[in-house]
Amino acid sequence: MNKTHKHTYHLTAGECDATGHLPLTSLCERLIEVATEHANILGIGYSKLVTLGLGWVLSRLSVEMTAYPGINDTYSITTWIEQINRRFSERNMLIQDEAGNTIGYARTVWVAIDIAKRTMGDLSAITSEPLPCPALPCPIAKMPRLTSPRAGSREFEYTFRYCDLDFNRHVNTVRYIDLILNRWPLDHFDRNLVRRFDIAFSHECYFHDVVLVRTDPEGPVNDCELLREGQKVVSARITWQERESSPTIFKPL
Amino acid sequence: MNKTHKHTYHLTAGECDATGHLPLTSLCERLIEVATEHANILGIGYSKLVTLGLGWVLSRLSVEMTAYPGINDTYSITTWIEQINRRFSERNMLIQDEAGNTIGYARTVWVAIDIAKRTMGDLSAITSEPLPCPALPCPIAKMPRLTSPRAGSREFEYTFRYCDLDFNRHVNTVRYIDLILNRWPLDHFDRNLVRRFDIAFSHECYFHDVVLVRTDPEGPVNDCELLREGQKVVSARITWQERESSPTIFKPL
Repeated sequence: MNKTHKHTYHLTAGECDATGHLPLTSLCERLIEVATEHANILGIGYSKLVTLGLGWVLSRLSVEMTAYPGINDTYSITTWIEQINRRFSERNMLIQDEAGNTIGYARTVWVAIDIAKRTMGDLSAITSEPLPCPALPCPIAKMPRLTSPRAGSREFEYTFRYCDLDFNRHVNTVRYIDLILNRWPLDHFDRNLVRRFDIAFSHECYFHDVVLVRTDPEGPVNDCELLREGQKVVSARITWQERESSPTIFKPL
Repeated sequence: MNKTHKHTYHLTAGECDATGHLPLTSLCERLIEVATEHANILGIGYSKLVTLGLGWVLSRLSVEMTAYPGINDTYSITTWIEQINRRFSERNMLIQDEAGNTIGYARTVWVAIDIAKRTMGDLSAITSEPLPCPALPCPIAKMPRLTSPRAGSREFEYTFRYCDLDFNRHVNTVRYIDLILNRWPLDHFDRNLVRRFDIAFSHECYFHDVVLVRTDPEGPVNDCELLREGQKVVSARITWQERESSPTIFKPL
């Protein structure tokens, strides 16, 4: 059985950010894509879940990178299930450059939503048969407890629109990341890379929801949150690192 | 020589919009991707142009679709050069469903920018050797003259941020399309598809530029424009079609 799934990508110029690298947003899209592909291969993808009235939803994502692919670089993402039970699935990813060097790891937690009720779904129906959970290393820390930004944080209001939504008719993971990253100026990205990014989703957001994006203004580690009518819907933490000090061999933080 | 280049895609659930289809924004990303891949294959891609101090920039895009791929559908995009001269290159695309049925066509016009001067570049250096320009059909009309929205148009102000930029350090094509599509409510997309989309780029936008997005409020054909300090930077036209009336066999408008 396909214990792991690997997808190799070529990074075209058009996909790169202003620094000429794979942006974190696109990387996260790819992480979700390989997870989806592997779930499809294992017969626990969208097509299977929809017959049970369920849909996969990303609940948590942590990614740590020491380098990002540049224009015309080839890179690969390998994914595997760490554990799966009736409440959630933990799925990890290894990111490698063209030469096979490790440049990052990711940890993701997926839950099922009951599409009609918009409540947490039960995965028992797909975990009755054993799924492969290989004991592969994923040396990055699990998601820490995320805290709210400090007093004096920057605030920005945004209203979600059509292009922010995905097939679940709620706001797409990547759009939350966009919104958060966009709170920093361009020269900050020229000088720093996202060494680690943690994001946790507490509540779905829908078309026309208005959110307040709060971000820590300074320091190498920034807490972020999105509030809807005062309620926290998303928490995130960015750990920045100056580009020149980035290690070439992957080391977890 | 590779007269045409074809790329086959599988549409994962995560890439779909709220209607469960490939969004226009992702389709346009893919059109740009296959163009980039073919240019790379022909030796006139980013790597070649950068040695001449040039970069490819999309100047115009027209796309006509009668149907859009849905979740887990496979589709392909085939591209070829219609003509290339020292000022611009015209490149067309055919979009087909899994069975090989035509579901759309696109026409694109590319120019080179001089990266340092930010002026129009001269493509003579890459057109000195003949490039393949096969006489393949592309039955959709060339871009019409785009006009400004009518008086009484809707207006929305936006400031460009980090995630809106690409490797040329100007605003990415797809972000303009996002901004425009986001002016319509979700139920409009539930009832209508984008039958044809035309977009022309007059001036680059940069980090922190503020634009006014003006869109026609009603009717099956909507003119749109983006103004920066009163100057038009982007013009677009959307031709909508009710979903149920969409022909299954491709017919140009």
